[in-house]
Amino acid sequence: MLPNPRTQVKRLPQRASYDAQQVYDILDEALICHLGFAVEGQPFVIPTAYGRLEDQLYIHGSPASRMLRTLDRGVDVCLTVTLLDGLVLARSAFHHSMNYRSVVLFGTATRVDDPTEKLMALKAFTDHVVPGRWAEVRPPNPQELAGTLVLGLPIAEASAKVRTGPPIDAPEDYALPVWAGEIPLQQTAAAPVADEQCLPQLEVPDYAATYRRHSQR
Amino acid sequence: MLPNPRTQVKRLPQRASYDAQQVYDILDEALICHLGFAVEGQPFVIPTAYGRLEDQLYIHGSPASRMLRTLDRGVDVCLTVTLLDGLVLARSAFHHSMNYRSVVLFGTATRVDDPTEKLMALKAFTDHVVPGRWAEVRPPNPQELAGTLVLGLPIAEASAKVRTGPPIDAPEDYALPVWAGEIPLQQTAAAPVADEQCLPQLEVPDYAATYRRHSQR
Repeated sequence: MLPNPRTQVKRLPQRASYDAQQVYDILDEALICHLGFAVEGQPFVIPTAYGRLEDQLYIHGSPASRMLRTLDRGVDVCLTVTLLDGLVLARSAFHHSMNYRSVVLFGTATRVDDPTEKLMALKAFTDHVVPGRWAEVRPPNPQELAGTLVLGLPIAEASAKVRTGPPIDAPEDYALPVWAGEIPLQQTAAAPVADEQCLPQLEVPDYAATYRRHSQR
Repeated sequence: MLPNPRTQVKRLPQRASYDAQQVYDILDEALICHLGFAVEGQPFVIPTAYGRLEDQLYIHGSPASRMLRTLDRGVDVCLTVTLLDGLVLARSAFHHSMNYRSVVLFGTATRVDDPTEKLMALKAFTDHVVPGRWAEVRPPNPQELAGTLVLGLPIAEASAKVRTGPPIDAPEDYALPVWAGEIPLQQTAAAPVADEQCLPQLEVPDYAATYRRHSQR
């Protein structure tokens, strides 16, 4: 992807990337996005789940959702995804930082009406969160499909921004007797908790028992 | 806090809370926020760190930051914080969900010029990320203080939204032979990685060796 005036990273441009695969990798690892839009100048930022199929990002929800109804009118959207990889502890307060990978995506959303694409988007959505889950659950029935609004956003105007590595202190501060380094952070899964109404003979599926997000680090 | 037309949660209002302490608890546990603002109708959503002192939320950065310069002009801000607590696996694709705690905060930011408040805000900022860190590091010198723009946002117009618990399936689906339940998620810290230039006699501080975010769950 080529940067344009909207996607060009202004602050710390050395951390920026416009590589589509890097954008996809970050989108695929994260679980939620923060979706921004404005109504008469008033910004709203709403966390929501999503799925990706090639160069399309899908969001979905109730047709009654104010966010989806607003997006369906074709307003400008800014969708941001952030993976926090670590806390960067410098010797000075000023140079503390965080290691992260983020994507900022601009565009306008389009309603997905085609039943086949809609079903593929919902499959992508479920399998994005828990790979393999879609094949084992009851698929949407016609009422549920009709009661789900799916919007697609092209992954065309996007930038990634990444910080890795140790703190960068002022040269004279390296002599200070202050421990410095990184505290790595990860989103980890604990043991699955079965619904009390789960049928007793059902085992925890492997994808739940060993759930993890596959970090690119 | 009393809900107003801007903060009133529209979707699934049974998940909403306007309790200040609940809002503070979520803000204190999370590490980053997603900050939304619009410039001529174009929304931007930028991830950033923050600190809290009583009913003020502080953000900071370079005076060259486009985001901070825009906020400093008094534009409307929507600041959103999301803690993802679990993946909710239902028997039907349609009823999959996530457990989460989020805060949406509206307002306008004000520049902090008073040197004492500015230093307190920066202390809150550092200690929000790593409690106890501020006391051990070199504090900002006058040039660094001048080179840091600090903005305050009152925590007055805010709402929290929380989902907990198992999946809620359609009654007829409970008989399906599909495992259902929750995969709990947490942000966890791995062993700290010392900067290669760390002085050799320095031990990893306890707050880094045993780092964790204290969940309210």
